[in-house]
Amino acid sequence: MTQTDSPTLAMPTSLQADLSNIRIILARPSHPGNIGAAARAMKTMGITDMALVAPKQFPDAHADAMAAAAVDVLQNARVVDTLAEALEGCIHATAVTARRRELASEPLWAHEATQELASLSSQGKVALVFGNETFGLSNEEVALCQRWTMIPTGELSSSLNLSQAVQILCYEMRQAAVAPKALPPIPDAGELAKLDEIEGFLVHMHRAAVKVDFLDPENPGRMMIRLRRLFGRSRMEIEEIHILRGLLAAFEKALRK
Amino acid sequence: MTQTDSPTLAMPTSLQADLSNIRIILARPSHPGNIGAAARAMKTMGITDMALVAPKQFPDAHADAMAAAAVDVLQNARVVDTLAEALEGCIHATAVTARRRELASEPLWAHEATQELASLSSQGKVALVFGNETFGLSNEEVALCQRWTMIPTGELSSSLNLSQAVQILCYEMRQAAVAPKALPPIPDAGELAKLDEIEGFLVHMHRAAVKVDFLDPENPGRMMIRLRRLFGRSRMEIEEIHILRGLLAAFEKALRK
Repeated sequence: MTQTDSPTLAMPTSLQADLSNIRIILARPSHPGNIGAAARAMKTMGITDMALVAPKQFPDAHADAMAAAAVDVLQNARVVDTLAEALEGCIHATAVTARRRELASEPLWAHEATQELASLSSQGKVALVFGNETFGLSNEEVALCQRWTMIPTGELSSSLNLSQAVQILCYEMRQAAVAPKALPPIPDAGELAKLDEIEGFLVHMHRAAVKVDFLDPENPGRMMIRLRRLFGRSRMEIEEIHILRGLLAAFEKALRK
Repeated sequence: MTQTDSPTLAMPTSLQADLSNIRIILARPSHPGNIGAAARAMKTMGITDMALVAPKQFPDAHADAMAAAAVDVLQNARVVDTLAEALEGCIHATAVTARRRELASEPLWAHEATQELASLSSQGKVALVFGNETFGLSNEEVALCQRWTMIPTGELSSSLNLSQAVQILCYEMRQAAVAPKALPPIPDAGELAKLDEIEGFLVHMHRAAVKVDFLDPENPGRMMIRLRRLFGRSRMEIEEIHILRGLLAAFEKALRK
C-alpha cells in the first residue's frame, strides 16, 4: 500500500507541470554521502534528472549507500566540468543560495520559486542549482541563473545540510506540480530560448562591442553583468534572439564593407 | 483534541503560533546519525524541543557530528522509555507515517497537518511523532496520537530518510507559523526606465537597423513589434538603456569612419 492509494487523501493531478523536466544540479559537491542523500530526496518526490558539476568524489560507495533505492538516479547522473555544461538544453535556471547576492537576478523564496519552476517545466527543461556545502555557488555560477532563491530559516541556525535543502525544494516542487497555482500564461508566447542560445547571443554581443571599442576586454566593467541580468529576466524567445543576432550580424557586415 | 474533531480546518492565525511549543519525538530510532541530522533539521527551522523514545544508541559521537551547530538540541533532548512519557504535557500529538493506517485518527497531508499544529501551538505544547527508520510507529503508538499525517511522495519511491521527513515537516511548520516575510529585496536594482526612454531606445534601434539594411522601412514586418514586446516585458532600467544605446552609437560611429 503506498501513500497515493489512500482514498481519503486524493491529490489533484497537474495537467501542466512536468517533473521529468526538472533537473537538479549539484555544483562541486564535496561529500559523496550528500550526493547519494540528494538522489534519494529527489526520487521520493518523483524527480530523477541529476547533473553533477566537478564532484570531488564520484561515483562512490558511500553515495550509493545513502541513495538507497535511488541508485539509478546516481547511475544516470550526468557528470560535467562546468555549470554551463550542466545547463545545456535548459530554458531556465534557479540558483539556491543561503545568502543575499549582489548584482544577481531577482530573488524568490523557495515556495514561490518552485511554483515558478513547476509552471515553466511545462515548456521545457528547468534547473535548480545547488552549490558546494561550504562555499555555496560562485558569483559566476549565480550569474548563469535567471533567478535565485533562499529557503527561509529561523534565527537560531541557517545551516541546512545540502541534501536537506534538496529535499525541501523537491518537496515544494512536487507540491507545486501536483497542485499548481498556475502563473498567468504569457499571451501569444513563442518558444522559449535555451540558456545556451541566450549565452550565444551574449557572446555575440560582447564580440561586437569589443570590435567597435565600446567594451575593453581588459577592463570590461559591469556592462556584460548588466546585460546578462537584463536578458536573463526577460524569458527570451528563440525568434527574439534571431532578430537581435541578425541585427548584430548586419552591423558586422556593414563594418566590413 | 480528540478523534471526533472535524478534519476540516480553520485557517491558522499565524501570529499566534509558538515554535517553542513544538516538540519533535523520535520513537525508537536505530541510527544515531539520523538523530543528529534531525536535530540540525529542527534547529534550522527554529524548533529545539526534542524527545527520544528508547533510542538504540544515544548519546553518540556520530549523532553529534551530524547535528553540526545543533548539538545543543541533542544535549537538551529528553530520553524516555515510552511514547506516553514523551507526550507528557502535550495537548495534541500528530503521528507521521509512511503508510495508510486502519482504525486510526483522521489523516491530513503534511501541509495541512503542520498548519493545524502551528495553530494549536498557541494553546500549548504539541508533538510531531516519528517512528523507527524501518518499522515506523506501532499501532499502539499511533493510537496515542490525535491525528496522523503523511508526506506526499511520488510513485517512484516513497522511502524518505527519517531526518529528511523531519526536515520537511519542520520546514512546513515554520512556513505555517511565521507570518509571511517580505521577499528579499532585489539586490542592486536600478531605477526603472520611463516608457518614453524605452521608446527612445526602440526608435534608435529602428534607425540603426535601417542604416545597415537589416530593416526595410517600407516593409518592416514584425521585427519592431517583437522587440517592443521583448523590452516591454523586461522592466528595463535606465542604466540598461544607456548601455544598449551606447552600443548602438558605437556601431554608428564605427560605420562613419
